[in-house]
Parts: sequence; C-alpha cells; structure tokens
Amino acid sequence: MGRNPRVGVIGATGYAGMELVRLILQHPSMELSYLAGSRERDETFSELFVHLVHEQGVPVEAFDPDACTAACDLAFVALPSGESGHVAAQLHARDLRVIDLSGDLRLSPEVYQAWYHKKPVDAAVQAAAVYGLTEFNGERVATADLVANPGCYATAAILAARPLCAAPFVNASQPLIIDAKSGVTGAGRSAKPHLHFAELSDDFYPYKVGQHQHTPEIEQALDGRFSVLLTTQLLPVRRGIFASVYAQLADVPSTAEVYRLYQEIYADAPFVHVFSPPQVPHIKAVAGSNYVHIGFSVNESARVLQVFCAIDNLQKGAAGQAVQNANRMFGFHETAGLTTPSMWM
Amino acid sequence: MGRNPRVGVIGATGYAGMELVRLILQHPSMELSYLAGSRERDETFSELFVHLVHEQGVPVEAFDPDACTAACDLAFVALPSGESGHVAAQLHARDLRVIDLSGDLRLSPEVYQAWYHKKPVDAAVQAAAVYGLTEFNGERVATADLVANPGCYATAAILAARPLCAAPFVNASQPLIIDAKSGVTGAGRSAKPHLHFAELSDDFYPYKVGQHQHTPEIEQALDGRFSVLLTTQLLPVRRGIFASVYAQLADVPSTAEVYRLYQEIYADAPFVHVFSPPQVPHIKAVAGSNYVHIGFSVNESARVLQVFCAIDNLQKGAAGQAVQNANRMFGFHETAGLTTPSMWM
Amino acid sequence: MGRNPRVGVIGATGYAGMELVRLILQHPSMELSYLAGSRERDETFSELFVHLVHEQGVPVEAFDPDACTAACDLAFVALPSGESGHVAAQLHARDLRVIDLSGDLRLSPEVYQAWYHKKPVDAAVQAAAVYGLTEFNGERVATADLVANPGCYATAAILAARPLCAAPFVNASQPLIIDAKSGVTGAGRSAKPHLHFAELSDDFYPYKVGQHQHTPEIEQALDGRFSVLLTTQLLPVRRGIFASVYAQLADVPSTAEVYRLYQEIYADAPFVHVFSPPQVPHIKAVAGSNYVHIGFSVNESARVLQVFCAIDNLQKGAAGQAVQNANRMFGFHETAGLTTPSMWM
Amino acid sequence: MGRNPRVGVIGATGYAGMELVRLILQHPSMELSYLAGSRERDETFSELFVHLVHEQGVPVEAFDPDACTAACDLAFVALPSGESGHVAAQLHARDLRVIDLSGDLRLSPEVYQAWYHKKPVDAAVQAAAVYGLTEFNGERVATADLVANPGCYATAAILAARPLCAAPFVNASQPLIIDAKSGVTGAGRSAKPHLHFAELSDDFYPYKVGQHQHTPEIEQALDGRFSVLLTTQLLPVRRGIFASVYAQLADVPSTAEVYRLYQEIYADAPFVHVFSPPQVPHIKAVAGSNYVHIGFSVNESARVLQVFCAIDNLQKGAAGQAVQNANRMFGFHETAGLTTPSMWM
Repeated sequence: MGRNPRVGVIGATGYAGMELVRLILQHPSMELSYLAGSRERDETFSELFVHLVHEQGVPVEAFDPDACTAACDLAFVALPSGESGHVAAQLHARDLRVIDLSGDLRLSPEVYQAWYHKKPVDAAVQAAAVYGLTEFNGERVATADLVANPGCYATAAILAARPLCAAPFVNASQPLIIDAKSGVTGAGRSAKPHLHFAELSDDFYPYKVGQHQHTPEIEQALDGRFSVLLTTQLLPVRRGIFASVYAQLADVPSTAEVYRLYQEIYADAPFVHVFSPPQVPHIKAVAGSNYVHIGFSVNESARVLQVFCAIDNLQKGAAGQAVQNANRMFGFHETAGLTTPSMWM
Repeated sequence: MGRNPRVGVIGATGYAGMELVRLILQHPSMELSYLAGSRERDETFSELFVHLVHEQGVPVEAFDPDACTAACDLAFVALPSGESGHVAAQLHARDLRVIDLSGDLRLSPEVYQAWYHKKPVDAAVQAAAVYGLTEFNGERVATADLVANPGCYATAAILAARPLCAAPFVNASQPLIIDAKSGVTGAGRSAKPHLHFAELSDDFYPYKVGQHQHTPEIEQALDGRFSVLLTTQLLPVRRGIFASVYAQLADVPSTAEVYRLYQEIYADAPFVHVFSPPQVPHIKAVAGSNYVHIGFSVNESARVLQVFCAIDNLQKGAAGQAVQNANRMFGFHETAGLTTPSMWM
Repeated sequence: MGRNPRVGVIGATGYAGMELVRLILQHPSMELSYLAGSRERDETFSELFVHLVHEQGVPVEAFDPDACTAACDLAFVALPSGESGHVAAQLHARDLRVIDLSGDLRLSPEVYQAWYHKKPVDAAVQAAAVYGLTEFNGERVATADLVANPGCYATAAILAARPLCAAPFVNASQPLIIDAKSGVTGAGRSAKPHLHFAELSDDFYPYKVGQHQHTPEIEQALDGRFSVLLTTQLLPVRRGIFASVYAQLADVPSTAEVYRLYQEIYADAPFVHVFSPPQVPHIKAVAGSNYVHIGFSVNESARVLQVFCAIDNLQKGAAGQAVQNANRMFGFHETAGLTTPSMWM
Repeated sequence: MGRNPRVGVIGATGYAGMELVRLILQHPSMELSYLAGSRERDETFSELFVHLVHEQGVPVEAFDPDACTAACDLAFVALPSGESGHVAAQLHARDLRVIDLSGDLRLSPEVYQAWYHKKPVDAAVQAAAVYGLTEFNGERVATADLVANPGCYATAAILAARPLCAAPFVNASQPLIIDAKSGVTGAGRSAKPHLHFAELSDDFYPYKVGQHQHTPEIEQALDGRFSVLLTTQLLPVRRGIFASVYAQLADVPSTAEVYRLYQEIYADAPFVHVFSPPQVPHIKAVAGSNYVHIGFSVNESARVLQVFCAIDNLQKGAAGQAVQNANRMFGFHETAGLTTPSMWM
C-alpha cells in the first residue's frame, strides 16, 4: 500500500478553505501538505485555526505555484471568483490535479462574463474542466484532472430539480421558481458591514434579486429544459441552504410516483436521502455534514409540485463536495472522511 | 373631551396578548382596564410582565364575562382558535365592542371547518364580523362592533398581492405562489418541543405544507381571483414575517408601472411603504413596529413578478393591527400609539 | 410656550448615533435639526436609516462646526474615542451645549492616556465636563453645558456598586470583582472580522482582559474606595449589558438590609428598578429601553454579596442616558421620550 | 481480536443521550446495541434522530433491565437526577458496567439530599462509584465498573481550579468565585416555558443563584480546600460552558509561573489545551468537540488570578466525557472516537 496522497488548499483562510482544512485533517487517507492564504501577520496554524489547536498543522504561506506543485498531488483552490480559476488553470498547466471551488470554471466564457462581470479563464481550460456534481457526473469526475466544484445554491437547486427533467408530469414551458435561503458563511469571511452580527441577527431578506450568478449554472445543469427564476435570501444562521423548487404541473402525479422517481435517481447516491411527505428537510439535520435531504409536496389544487432540498453550504455546497470529488479522483470510497453527521442540537 | 376609552385583553399571557398590553400601556388615548389570562400561580402583573415592571398594571384575572363587560368599552380577544371566537361572540352579545385576533371569525363556517378542523361560531355572528384589514376595509371597521383581525401570514400576503387583482399584466389563470417565512412568536407562547431554543436555533424548515389555514383567508381577500399556494416556514428569529409572492405575467410591465400601481393603492396607508427596485424589505426594518415594507422585481426572462412584503407578525400581523382597528373604531388617528419605529440593531 | 430645542448628532451613522436619531425623532419636545456622519456615497436619510423610512429626516452631512452651531441648541457627539472629545471641545468653545458620548471627557488627562493610549483633550476642558450619571449627579447635569456621558460597562457597574460605598457590611480592603457581559453593538458598527455574524454567533469569550478602559471610570465613580477588577465579555446578542459585582463582606447583612439600602438610594431614580431575591435581572427585560434592573444575593457561606445589573448598552449605556441628560439640561422631565419599554419577545 | 464491546444508552431521547448515540455510532470500536428512551408514539430511530437518518440505528425501547443486561457490555444511563442513579444501581447489581451521567452518584447521601432535594441511592452503591474525571482519576476509572460522570459546570470549574490546590501563591482562606455561563442544552430537552426560543433568544441571566447543585461537587473535587461561590447563567447558544474562576492571591505569581503549573498538570491530558495570555478560550472553539481550552490572567493591582475554561457541555460536560471514561474502561486509547474538532463557523 502506497502513501496517502498529499493535498493542498489555496485560500485556506476563507470559510471554504477553513472547512477543507478541517475535513482533510479528519480524512483517513489524505495528507494535508500545503496551505496558502492571506494572513494579517505571521500567525501560526494554531492562531489561525484555534479550533484545530490540537492538530499538527502545516504553515500557511503566501501562494507560490512552484511550492504548491512540489508539495501536492492535488490542490483545492478556494479563492474569490475572478481569481480562483486563473490560479487553478496555472496549477493545471503544471500537471497538478486541481479542484476549483469558485464559479470560474463552471460556465462558458460568454455566460460567465454576462453573470460574473469578470474576466473569464481561457475557453479551452474551461472546456477541460469537469463539472463536479458527483451524483450525476461521478464517472467523469473519477478520471478528471480539473474539476469545477458546483456552487452552493446550484448544488441544492440541481439536486432538487434535476429529476424533474425526466418527469412526464411537469410543464416545462413554465419557469421553475426557486426560492432559496442560505446561512451567512456562504457570503464569505471578509468583514463587510451587512455581515456584522448586529446587522444580520434577527433579519431576513433577499439579495441579488434576479441576478444571482448561480442561475445559469442551474439552467445548464438542467440541460436548458427550464427557465429558472432563482431568488437568494440571507438567513441569520451560520450554515445551511434550503431551496424550494416550484414546478407547474402538466398532470398531477401521485405522491408515490414522485417519491419513486427521486428514490430511483438517488438510489446509489450515498449522501442523498429522500423523505416521503409530510416529512420535510431541516437545515439543522444536515448542517455540519455532507448529507443532502430532499422532500416534496404535490399541491393538487394549484397544480404545483414543490421540492425542498437542504444542504450545508460549506460541506455539500463547497468543501465537502470538493472532498467527495477528490475521493472519486483518488479512487477512494465516495464517503471517505465525510461520514460525520450533523450534531442537530 | 371625555375620558379615554377603557380596553381589556382576554388572553393577556400569550404573545399577541402581551404585545397588546404593551401597546395599550403606551397608547396616548386608551386606558388598560381589564386583563384575563392563564397564570401558573398568583403572579402579579410585574412578575408576569417583567419588562413592564415600571408600569402601573392591572391584575390578571381568570376570564369572567360580567367583569369584562363592566370594565371595558372594547375588548381584544386573543385566545387560541376554536376558543377565541366563541368568547368574542359571548362578549359581543352583551353589546361590548370586540376585536378578535384569532381565525375564528374570518371565514364562513364551511371553509373554517375544512381548514381549522374546529367547531365554527354561529354563522350569523361570523357574518356580522368585519374583516379588519384597515388598508382596504377602513370605513367598515370604523363603524364595526365586531372585528375579525387578520392573520399574520394573511396580512403580509394580502398586502403584497391585493394590488395584483387590478393589474392587467398578471396571468390570473396561474396560481399565486407564496413562499412565506415567520419568526417563532407566530407559533405562540406555549412550551412545545420544536420551539425549544436548542431545537429551533440555526434551523429553517417548512411546516403545514399545503395545509396552512391562512390559505383560504388570502384567497377570499383576493376575491377568489387567484388560486393560492401558501408555504409557511419557520425562521430562527423572534419576530417578523417575510412573504414572497410569485405571479406569472400575461404581459411584462415596466418597473415604473408596477411601482405606480402600488404607490397609488397605498397612497393613504400610513403604515405601508413601497420600495423601488432594487431596494428590498428587511424584516428587521419593521420588527417591533406596525410598519409594512413592500418591494418587488419584474423578471422578464421568466415572465414572473415577485412581490416582497415584510411585517412584524406580532404588530401588523396581530396586536398592532388590532390597535390600528381600535383606533378607527374610536375615531382616533389610525396611527395613534403605533408610531414607534423598529430599533434595527 | 417657545419652540422645541433643536438638537444635532455628530456621528449619526454609528450605533450610538443611530440610536440617538431614533430617540430624538420619538421625543415629544426635541427637534432633530442636524446630522453629521460618514457615508459611503450620497445616501439619503431613508437609505441610511431604513427602519425610519416613514420619518421626515434631515440630511446627513460631513461635519462642519459652523453649520452645527448654527443649526443646534445642543449637540450629541458620538464619535470614536480620541476624536469625539476634541470635536466636543471645539463645539463647546463656540458656546454650544454638548453631550459627548465617548470616553474622552471622563478621566483626567493622565489616567485617560494610560488607559486609552490616545491624546487627551485639554485639561481645562476635561475639568469643565460634568459626569453625566444622572442618578448621582443630576443637579450638576441640569446646569452643565458640557457633559461626559458615562461608558456602557461603567454605567452598569457603577449603578450596581455605588451603593456599596456607603455600606458598613462590605470589606473595602478587598477588590470588587466585576464580571460583565455585553451585546455586540457595544463594539461599534465598523465591519471587523471578529464581529462577522458567522464568527460571533454561538460564541462567548472575554476580551481586553485586565485592560478595559472603563476600569478607571468605575474606580473614580466609587470615589476610589475599591480596587476594581473588570472583566468584559462578548455575548452573541445585539443589545444588553449584564454586570455581576462580587463584594467580599466584613459582616453578613440580611437580604432585607441590602434591599432597603438599594431601594432608598434609588427611590427617586425613575429608570432604576431593584428586585428582591430570588428575582434576578434579565437583559431582555431592559433591551430597547432606558431602564435599569438591579438584583442581588447574599451568600453567607462564601461571605460574598453579588449584585446584578442589566441595562441596554445603547440606551442607558449610551444614547438613552444622553437623552436623559439632555432632558435635565433642558428642564424637561427626566423620562421625556424615554418611556418605551422593552419588547421582551 | 474479539468483537467490539456492545454499549447501550438509557435515556437516549434526552440531549446527553442523543449525543451519546451520535458519538457511539461514530466510534471505531463500540457497537450500539441497545436504546431506551421516552417516545411520543412508535417513532423509528430515523424519525427520532433525523440527523442520523443515514445510519443503521437500533430501535428505541421502553427501558427493561433484562433486555438491557442481555444486550450490553456497558450501559450509559442519562436519565434525570433522582431517577438515573437508581437505574444505574439496578444495572450495576446485575453485573453490568455502568456510567451514570446524572448527579446521583457523585455525592454522599447527606450532601446529595441537601442540594438535590431527592432521595439518594444506597450509600454503599454511591461509595462504590468512581468519579469519572479522567484527567485526575484515570487509573481508577480504568478498572471501575460503576462510574459517576461529572457534571457539566463541575467539569469546567474543576479543570480550571484544581491546579490551584497545589499553588503556593493562592490565598485559600478566601472563596473561589466562579462565574459560569452555559448554553441551553445543559437545561435538558424537555419543553419548558423559559426554554422557548422566543424567551431565551437575546437574553442572558443567572439562575439557581447560590443554590446550584454542582457547588458541592466542585468543593469535593478541590479536596475541600476552598469555599466555592458558583453562579450559573444561561447563554443564548446551544452548546458550551464558559467558567471564570477568580482566586485571591497571597503572592502575585508571574504569568510564566502560572502557565508552567497548568502545562505540567495537563501534560498528559490529550483533550486539555492551555493558552498563554493574552489568548483566551472561546466556547466556539470547543463546541461540538471533547476538547478543553484553558486560559488565565494575573491581575496584579487587584491581586486576583482569573482562570478561564471553555468546554462543550454535551461533550466534555456529559456524553463526550462518558465515552472518554468508557474508552478507559475498555482499554482503548482515551481519545478513540472523540477527535472530531469543533467546526468553528
């Protein structure tokens, strides 16, 4: 048996990066070998990650592609959009396997520019990246050397809506209305006025209405079958995304029929659990874990199917999914290092 | 000028009742004269309402219709549904003016029974009750002696959706999808397992999916023009309702056209404020106040109009609206005693 | 009867300033006439204070001493320490009455410099400032034209501990141990990493251990009779300070004796309420109000008296107390505009 | 190598019990074999523990000592005080190894009755129970067949204060003042009015002042060297205890001297981490983990040493510590199954 693969995290001091560090240190078959991130001064690993003070960490350095390539078999890049994909491309060009957690590699340059308003990566690099939604793309991920890790809202929305692409009872000429709510870690770790505890506490409101950049990512993953209206809203909690998908019905299916559809599609997906009505997902039941809880309700009088999906935005919506992808790429079991459940209370 | 009218609260130890007590004590022209509520032992007013310890309160008694009628010019009844309307009817029969905060007087006996699964009040009493949404029904409220105070979700949804009844650009053959979220005081003050701090904190989830009893109340207030799909969800905050109404469009109006429609309809509504996009309501901006904030967004590609409405479920959604109705009934200015703004932080 | 006095707020976009704006707009006898604060762009009053969108506000300007002096009969200065006192001195020199909410005017230059590590104001100006703890200094405040508004922790600690200066049963040779906890608005409105919702939520920890600048302010207000050990800690709530004062006993008094002592001292203090054991203060019972709740417990076996004090750090700990001082200075009733109670839930 | 030991949980539907279930299911070398708890109806494991829906659980039964003894090599009893110890004694009498998480086996019958006001267990049974604070009692725990798991407040306080028993610089004639704060899961899972989200949210207050039953447990673990004044307070968070211990000093030690003392005493304690000033513990850095963070500060002018200790009340304060004890009893490494760190954000 060979040694464990060595993995690095670029952007280790943001929330997705911090979660990656935590998950990798807990992983039975990966070795944390490289960390790059921004620091205010020469803080040690223990000062930066006080909840990991008992761990043998590695120093957090300023990013250097040579040092990174030398130290790693695979790199997770978790930098802001507009920067992350370019770093990923740079490392990929040096033959390092890379999982990019930003939105930079998920969309064609044209669509990217229209929604992100940033300079896209080279079209050939973007085309080479495999979209890392393992539940639907696992075999391609297994052999990929460049993975575009899905967005947090996109992951919840797609896992809820993708089965509807094959559903005969849905009216695809009507838009999918997706009312989504996220915990605040999805907004990143940088100090911003609206993320101040005293501002967000006890509040709830929508943001980027009609303009959230995960909209085209969802439409693309649904093969363009639906027009998508995505509304994103901030919840006064740390973690969790709850997405409600409303689909107009051509015919009204039975509850059993919908349940069977979802059960079959997710039969081999170890992280996805489908509830039968009236049980509904709770974000707390998945927060802190890589699990996905899906529920639904058929409303006969309004002729609408609602599908609910709860994930942890930092795990299945970011770092957990990235490790899940890495597990596939290294040939590990998909769930390796990812079976810690939510604490609930 | 005569003395201030004397008002009483039945159900003073629930959340709506407590809020009524607080508002009446702050009211410049009402005198708190009677309180009935459930108590664990012989607690004084100061022990029950420790935040009002500096006030001259009145004793909290077991409900007695004779005592209540003798002590009051008007009674607020804020008991659980299935009980409240019967007490309201009893007091109304004794010629006391009554505002009932429960759902018992809002719906015809048939519809009530179908959604509340409880014994309705006498049909004639229900028919005599005026629906107390002052913004649309103010003149009838002014002369009423029995008022059915609207439900919290219903208030937010109706104020958001009612202008659409007159809008030529909406496709009324499609359902209105209402995705609504509420703070936990809406669930009442009784200790229940799922309301435990450790259970609700950091959670978010839907409840009563497809079965919330405010659905027919909304449909009725929209004159039956729309089929309504109401989804109610619990937010980990104390106060506030945020309702998002999604309407399919027959034609796509301009933003200015929608803004004008709402501005005109609410021109004389002192508590309602309409935002122009991209500004959106926040529940914190209205929490602790009787104000209503409305925003909207026209989504051209999905051909959907979203209308957002934020209220405080205990004020405009319950006690504040009840005082607003009482102001009308007593001939006071509609805003008397209700101008305290939200604290924001 | 003359017109209402015109008041201005310098630092209107910080938390204490925002609270002042809200309180002044609600005040029956003051007219808000001038606002200065920092703005990101040309935001209107309604954009800056969305919870006050229904009010006729005044524009928020860059501070100009001439404009301020012309517009106001009294100015509240709520700028950061090191800046605020100098602005207060500047306005005071132009014969404007000033209440400064910072720590700049509370301590002698030497003590100030030792604890604040900033340039003190002129010694003569500092000496001219009256310490605005109305409960003990009300008559001097009434005639003052320069008031040093007390600190938030200091207010809670002094109101709890000051009666002990006269108590024969306390062992004044031992230190007073003050374990104090504050909501996060006390840390100001600037975006800082540790104030991010995701960082503070569900946390609790001490800060500035042994070095909090309110320590000498408390010792001074206790006439130097006690050595004070103040520990300040951050609570994951928006508002509220809870201070626990532990005093060693020379003799063990009866509960009745301690209660009588506090009752007598606060007999004429309209905002202070003293509880008899075992009732204890709750920060929620005073949050959003200018009230002060005090409780205590005599521990016979440890020979320690504990005194608990709860206030709202933005009201009695800052803006509310400043308005209380202004009421005194204008000859209004001490409670004018300050009787809104806490909402509790 | 034989099979993994089979363990059961009595009281599996309370918070400590739920946490035990989660920890045991994650444990590499224990098999969950028996669950007893109270259920509202015939709920399955997945309905009761929705965050563990992906796990193969075991049914939750009504407690039966025969079934329990047959199914288990060791039982955790996590019932309310006054009930738990009697069940533990019953199982112990059947030669089952037992760890009792209640306060029933920690104190002599006389002291127990004085503080718990409940019927004590048989004196001989109580005397046979080993106090399970592994850091100081690990060798006795290893061979015990009946363990009294320490209380949550007691664990934090003792780990902070116990090193002071040997410290020459402390004035033991003065009381130890312990100001402790706990998250709400410490109050148990039963629905009680004061634990309602709307009641506790944004509040902070002391309870059981001077009467908390962990007081004698702490005094006993400090060998009676100190009189202890314990104040317990409720934090609006789910998990975490923060204890501040104030000790009067006979001589003022250097910071280095105090640090060395704590470092030496906890050199072999894998869960305890001692910070050097000015770094202080945060409850978030240990929440969700079995780790213990200790910090301190020497205040020269007041001649007081403050020691801070943060733990998770459900882990090191209850279930985690119980598993740590079971690890010792089974001869496993003390940290087996307990190395999951806090999530921080």
